[in-house]
Amino acid sequence: MILDVIRASRTVSRVELADATGLTQATVSTVVRKLIDEGLVVEVGRGASTGGKRRTLLQIEPTARYAFGAQLGSDATTFVLADLGGATVSRWRRGPLMKVAPDQAVAVVADELDGIVERAAIDRAKLSGVGLVAPGPLLAATGIVLAPPSMRGWVDFPLRERLEQATNLPVLLDNDATATAAGLYWTDGIAPKATLAALFMGQGIGAGLLYGGQVHRGAGGNAGEIGHITVDVDGPECWCGNRGCVEAIAGPVPTVERAREAGIDLGDPERSVVAAFGQLARLALGGDPKDLEVVGTSARYVAVAAHTLVNVIDPDLLVLTGPAFAVAGPLYLPVVANHVMARRFARHSTSIDVRLSTHGPEAAALGAAALVLQAELAPRGTEQAQA
Amino acid sequence: MILDVIRASRTVSRVELADATGLTQATVSTVVRKLIDEGLVVEVGRGASTGGKRRTLLQIEPTARYAFGAQLGSDATTFVLADLGGATVSRWRRGPLMKVAPDQAVAVVADELDGIVERAAIDRAKLSGVGLVAPGPLLAATGIVLAPPSMRGWVDFPLRERLEQATNLPVLLDNDATATAAGLYWTDGIAPKATLAALFMGQGIGAGLLYGGQVHRGAGGNAGEIGHITVDVDGPECWCGNRGCVEAIAGPVPTVERAREAGIDLGDPERSVVAAFGQLARLALGGDPKDLEVVGTSARYVAVAAHTLVNVIDPDLLVLTGPAFAVAGPLYLPVVANHVMARRFARHSTSIDVRLSTHGPEAAALGAAALVLQAELAPRGTEQAQA
Repeated sequence: MILDVIRASRTVSRVELADATGLTQATVSTVVRKLIDEGLVVEVGRGASTGGKRRTLLQIEPTARYAFGAQLGSDATTFVLADLGGATVSRWRRGPLMKVAPDQAVAVVADELDGIVERAAIDRAKLSGVGLVAPGPLLAATGIVLAPPSMRGWVDFPLRERLEQATNLPVLLDNDATATAAGLYWTDGIAPKATLAALFMGQGIGAGLLYGGQVHRGAGGNAGEIGHITVDVDGPECWCGNRGCVEAIAGPVPTVERAREAGIDLGDPERSVVAAFGQLARLALGGDPKDLEVVGTSARYVAVAAHTLVNVIDPDLLVLTGPAFAVAGPLYLPVVANHVMARRFARHSTSIDVRLSTHGPEAAALGAAALVLQAELAPRGTEQAQA
Repeated sequence: MILDVIRASRTVSRVELADATGLTQATVSTVVRKLIDEGLVVEVGRGASTGGKRRTLLQIEPTARYAFGAQLGSDATTFVLADLGGATVSRWRRGPLMKVAPDQAVAVVADELDGIVERAAIDRAKLSGVGLVAPGPLLAATGIVLAPPSMRGWVDFPLRERLEQATNLPVLLDNDATATAAGLYWTDGIAPKATLAALFMGQGIGAGLLYGGQVHRGAGGNAGEIGHITVDVDGPECWCGNRGCVEAIAGPVPTVERAREAGIDLGDPERSVVAAFGQLARLALGGDPKDLEVVGTSARYVAVAAHTLVNVIDPDLLVLTGPAFAVAGPLYLPVVANHVMARRFARHSTSIDVRLSTHGPEAAALGAAALVLQAELAPRGTEQAQA
């Protein structure tokens, strides 16, 4: 807890730590001493005088630990090496691994890890672990149990175990949307008490939830499945087994399909849905009414899902994130923000901030690394993921 | 935390407490000594021998504290006096106070409190406080800011302040659905780590959320507004300002209206919606196809809302509660349970328990009392309500 406050404050004195945590100064001093001895925290000079003695300021030592995050996306695989301060040391992408045999994919991820450790000249002992995220639902302890259509070959594969063997490091598996929420908290200076909802759009639609610095995974690690809420009881069947899901009506897959039916040229029909969706967004940003209409239809439904999420969770902050918003974000943000602000239940009592993530397509991989760092620093937040 | 574990365990030894909390035995012993000195915990003999010395068992002293809970409902006002063990000492109802001037209502609640303290012969010093719950959205610190149609006269009335003056006790205000979740946790032996969603139906539809023993109120105290999610984007306008809300399409108000339009006799048109809805449920339980069809339409939409709630929160346990389910519960339970079980996103990875509350119409008032007891025993859970 103390470490989390130091991290969130950037620099902080022991007295301020005692105030913020409610712990006694003696307890704070003991814990801080231990953190300094472990090299996780350093003293960085003195704060401004407030009449008495100037206070020594503390901050996280960013090079004390590193974490490796990987996101299995349908369009690409994204890798991030992050330091303990939440900064991105390196990030890169390669082709999608979802359709590769999972054993091969594990070997590729382990290779990429070895490569970056060498290139960045990092002491491997400082690596806290590997975070691997993919579209849900995942069972954190064992692997993937119900895969989206793009990952059917991964069902029942013991992903965590194999990747731990291949890397000789602890591995955390999680949902990409959940990881994104952790990443935002870790890197975007979100207040420790904030309630955050991250609406994540890749090929599918999900959400990551975070309250008081802890991600909410739900009883089985599948909270936040906002793409699979019914917005039309008589709507089309969804791959998840429900009917009228917002993802099936207005996610990137049906939206790209609708655009192609309307004769809009989105390039090679074999390219990934996220890439084709990005192309549609670029055309719409150019102002063509036909392109705008297709995107607008999707945005209106995504706004309904965002409204549901906000009414159920009542967050301070709603962030649109994930690869599908990397280009299309500016088209969706005003529609979602206006709908949510005008219609949310609590609009007369509290304010809400609706914004686009600044991390674009790396949000989930960075979040995967953040989950590993959080597990190292504030283990209570990861109990469910480890269960 | 220790007190919460003792309460949840009913009887527990100091060694088990140390195991369950992760605290050292020395810390546990110190805290337990303090709790015994304060009269909150008592020693109740020894457990079975496990080879060594038999361990002294601890339990909550139920008569150490009491709390008074009141629910302002559209059909009735419900009062509960609960003890520290979560048992209901007394419960009673009187006519609705919502349409009374709020100053008068405050006087009535204070009178009822004086009356029960006298009848139950309780030392007033043992009363921890008053919990008052009503349909949301409430602003816990100040009063009601956006009232449902039945409570427009209460907007901006300083309810908490006036009731504290009238009773000379601390007052907690909260949403009825949120309180219900706390009440279930307090009285129904819900595991401390459980994720619970309570779907509450009175005149409106809401939900209470509880994770790890703490209610989730959201940033502004308005989490769980599942009645105001869109299930039909082209649906009718709702009083909340949104369109196609499940409450506006299938809650007790439109359901009673639909029944009357179909010529079903629900008695005096002036009676409360909840009472008329109960009458409709009684007729449907009798097996008449016309009555069953009207209820069935509502149940199918309520099941959609329940499915959304489950996909967003991923709970272990979904409980149908609130006065509208008191009679109609058995008609809704199978529809909701089947829909949720067959369609929820996580159905292949985890199980969920869907059940009816056993507290019927007292659930929210008992929850109001539970919130007061929880504020006394485990203050961290009530930070937001007090903020």
